[in-house]
Amino acid sequence: MASLTHIDAEGSARMVDVSDKAATAREALAEGRVAMALATLELILSGNAKKGDVMGVARLAGIMAAKRTHELIPLCHPLMLTKVEVEVVADPALPGLHVTARAKTTGQTGVEMEALTAVSVACLTIYDMAKAADRGMRIEGIRLLEKSGGASGHFRAEPPTD
Amino acid sequence: MASLTHIDAEGSARMVDVSDKAATAREALAEGRVAMALATLELILSGNAKKGDVMGVARLAGIMAAKRTHELIPLCHPLMLTKVEVEVVADPALPGLHVTARAKTTGQTGVEMEALTAVSVACLTIYDMAKAADRGMRIEGIRLLEKSGGASGHFRAEPPTD
Amino acid sequence: MASLTHIDAEGSARMVDVSDKAATAREALAEGRVAMALATLELILSGNAKKGDVMGVARLAGIMAAKRTHELIPLCHPLMLTKVEVEVVADPALPGLHVTARAKTTGQTGVEMEALTAVSVACLTIYDMAKAADRGMRIEGIRLLEKSGGASGHFRAEPPTD
Amino acid sequence: MASLTHIDAEGSARMVDVSDKAATAREALAEGRVAMALATLELILSGNAKKGDVMGVARLAGIMAAKRTHELIPLCHPLMLTKVEVEVVADPALPGLHVTARAKTTGQTGVEMEALTAVSVACLTIYDMAKAADRGMRIEGIRLLEKSGGASGHFRAEPPTD
Amino acid sequence: MASLTHIDAEGSARMVDVSDKAATAREALAEGRVAMALATLELILSGNAKKGDVMGVARLAGIMAAKRTHELIPLCHPLMLTKVEVEVVADPALPGLHVTARAKTTGQTGVEMEALTAVSVACLTIYDMAKAADRGMRIEGIRLLEKSGGASGHFRAEPPTD
Amino acid sequence: MASLTHIDAEGSARMVDVSDKAATAREALAEGRVAMALATLELILSGNAKKGDVMGVARLAGIMAAKRTHELIPLCHPLMLTKVEVEVVADPALPGLHVTARAKTTGQTGVEMEALTAVSVACLTIYDMAKAADRGMRIEGIRLLEKSGGASGHFRAEPPTD
Repeated sequence: MASLTHIDAEGSARMVDVSDKAATAREALAEGRVAMALATLELILSGNAKKGDVMGVARLAGIMAAKRTHELIPLCHPLMLTKVEVEVVADPALPGLHVTARAKTTGQTGVEMEALTAVSVACLTIYDMAKAADRGMRIEGIRLLEKSGGASGHFRAEPPTD
Repeated sequence: MASLTHIDAEGSARMVDVSDKAATAREALAEGRVAMALATLELILSGNAKKGDVMGVARLAGIMAAKRTHELIPLCHPLMLTKVEVEVVADPALPGLHVTARAKTTGQTGVEMEALTAVSVACLTIYDMAKAADRGMRIEGIRLLEKSGGASGHFRAEPPTD
Repeated sequence: MASLTHIDAEGSARMVDVSDKAATAREALAEGRVAMALATLELILSGNAKKGDVMGVARLAGIMAAKRTHELIPLCHPLMLTKVEVEVVADPALPGLHVTARAKTTGQTGVEMEALTAVSVACLTIYDMAKAADRGMRIEGIRLLEKSGGASGHFRAEPPTD
Repeated sequence: MASLTHIDAEGSARMVDVSDKAATAREALAEGRVAMALATLELILSGNAKKGDVMGVARLAGIMAAKRTHELIPLCHPLMLTKVEVEVVADPALPGLHVTARAKTTGQTGVEMEALTAVSVACLTIYDMAKAADRGMRIEGIRLLEKSGGASGHFRAEPPTD
Repeated sequence: MASLTHIDAEGSARMVDVSDKAATAREALAEGRVAMALATLELILSGNAKKGDVMGVARLAGIMAAKRTHELIPLCHPLMLTKVEVEVVADPALPGLHVTARAKTTGQTGVEMEALTAVSVACLTIYDMAKAADRGMRIEGIRLLEKSGGASGHFRAEPPTD
Repeated sequence: MASLTHIDAEGSARMVDVSDKAATAREALAEGRVAMALATLELILSGNAKKGDVMGVARLAGIMAAKRTHELIPLCHPLMLTKVEVEVVADPALPGLHVTARAKTTGQTGVEMEALTAVSVACLTIYDMAKAADRGMRIEGIRLLEKSGGASGHFRAEPPTD
């Protein structure tokens, strides 16, 4: 039966013991999006037309946050990221920005929390930089898209339904 | 016309100068939710029936993350939070968990990023603690619900539409 | 003759060079306690009877602090913890709370500082949460109980004498 | 009746709301000690005879940790320390080192956790620097000696009894 | 006679007590530069012609580092920056990049260390991003250009001599 | 042709993927200096004659900063330092202080940024501790002296020319 690995037999929170797990190549891809007014998206894109800053700053904030995932998420293990990549793409149909993050490591634990943290902080950064123009933005659909390496095998998300 | 306060006239990212803003009482309330399989929610709730850990850990992670908002969001000002409160409530209809965070300060800048960061990290922590049971969870609807204090006046979000 | 490994031949502080040490499985167990008035202990336990918070928050604070040991202790090496476990148990005879922390890694340096840091910060957190009721609490007996792995061999503390 | 300020009516951990507290001058003095073999103390003191490093490094580690108290102690408010002072003095009768820390601020919350954190991390640093010579050291008697400012008035500890 | 404010009468390092200093508007401007091969500068500028990244990332790294100055510089007081601005400009005559940082606060201590830290980390970031092309880069001339506010009055650097 | 490894084909900043690099022994040596008035140097040295503090504090600040390099430099990989050593030596001919830092690791990326960060923060710390006596100090000549390990082979800087 399924159980919560971060809760021990007495119900206390714990950091899972990964001491005996093999150090394998691990990779995770996550996504999320910031929904906003069309005028806000246009403002961001016109700013980016100059020096690309909202999207560039969000990307960088996501990369830097990934490296601090284990400080933020209480029961996450520290790990040595070998790569973090964040992409921010305009989605006029949303309207808004779509964020993806890919994290890699060779280690004893997966990197999905690093990828999800990168997406979350990139989205928060977009919100921060555009909030004076639009307080109604929403961060939506943060989820794991794909995950490889480790004992649990390959995971690929089903197509989004919303 | 609206403009992005974090982008200067040449399009470069900047931290807004708040030196001349008055130090007033400021408060912000934000929300978000983690959608999951019903079985996952039941697993979390049964764990919480023992010692309340997933929800308790998420609440604490949100509070602690709020205090580090200015480290994560590149152009956020540091500020002295006088209160952070995070609530995590089960929503069987989702199914999933609903998170709200309230932040307060007396200062020259608003605290909406602190409230939004608290919500985001609480949601990520829920994901982390339940991910071994359910990799398909999604973090949805992170948004500002209410904001008071400061020159921009009171803001209250419209009722959620999704 | 014994010498201080963190002091070089000229008396300057240094981080010991562990480059040539083997990466082995290492584990450490540490303990400490918070002595308090009996009424304070009862207050904490009655709170914990509800949702277990003082003890749960202390446990989490200890785990999170262990991950930041190398930031706090100037000459500590960074390492990749594979497990941290903190237990908080009531000791009515003290009266007070007894804290133990176990840390594990596979690496070139021992993890006793991580275990001791976890204990210390868990104790400080208990103090913080109960201080409005009792300013006379004392943190006592923080020490290493056991250590394994590495060139210095197994260490087990003698039974406490106070 | 006394209650735990960090636990709300439902038993959940919270950061106390200090928004309406007056910003007053606050000061706290804390102490602790590291008990060790006499030979260990002599080793430290002879090292200090050269460049004073163990005691100097411990003092500095304590000062730096005080500034990060709110990151370590989950429900502590951030505050702007105006002074931190850490003293480390040899106590041949212990035998060991005696640590005191004084913290000051002008703010809405007390600084006892900052003083206690400074003492704790200074003691941990002493342990770290001398542990290769003596694994049996113990950190003892960490407590608040004096506290002034704020609504709770002046507090002075009774003379130590152990 | 001049003396070192961070060293007490017995020669120990200390954090200066600023409790009784007035909270005034303070501002500091610092500069530095990264000298490199002309080909390296051209490579950076051609990259920036696309999306401005080396200069944009360096600017952001400087802003973020300024907020963490008190964590890095042991005896620096924490303070609430109200503005940080970093500029990176190409100097073909050097050849290299010239960095300036301006920091502001209303507080009891000056912000020159924040401005100098922003410059230093921006320069280090430039080095990091271009080091695969040029390992011979040098960071030069980091200094305070101007400082206002506080008891020590206005300071303006003499024109650079190198 | 040379290119900037931290910029991808579209000009966006990225963290280089080192997943497939071999984990080899890596070492880097960096230097820098703080130029000051002769009277300032004498003040520092007379302080150091007592307990060595400015130079000792700077050395420690450099060591601690090296461990946080990946937090400060946006695209730096986290790594497990096995050694950091910082030396601070008086140079009456400058006049000022000369700082060197050596960093070692076994890993997939070089440690030159760690060595350069240690030097930079040690220099900033010297500036901070002496600034009340001399605001005209300058940090000069921060550069990589030597680097070994990794695919790029051994690097040794040419003799300084300034």
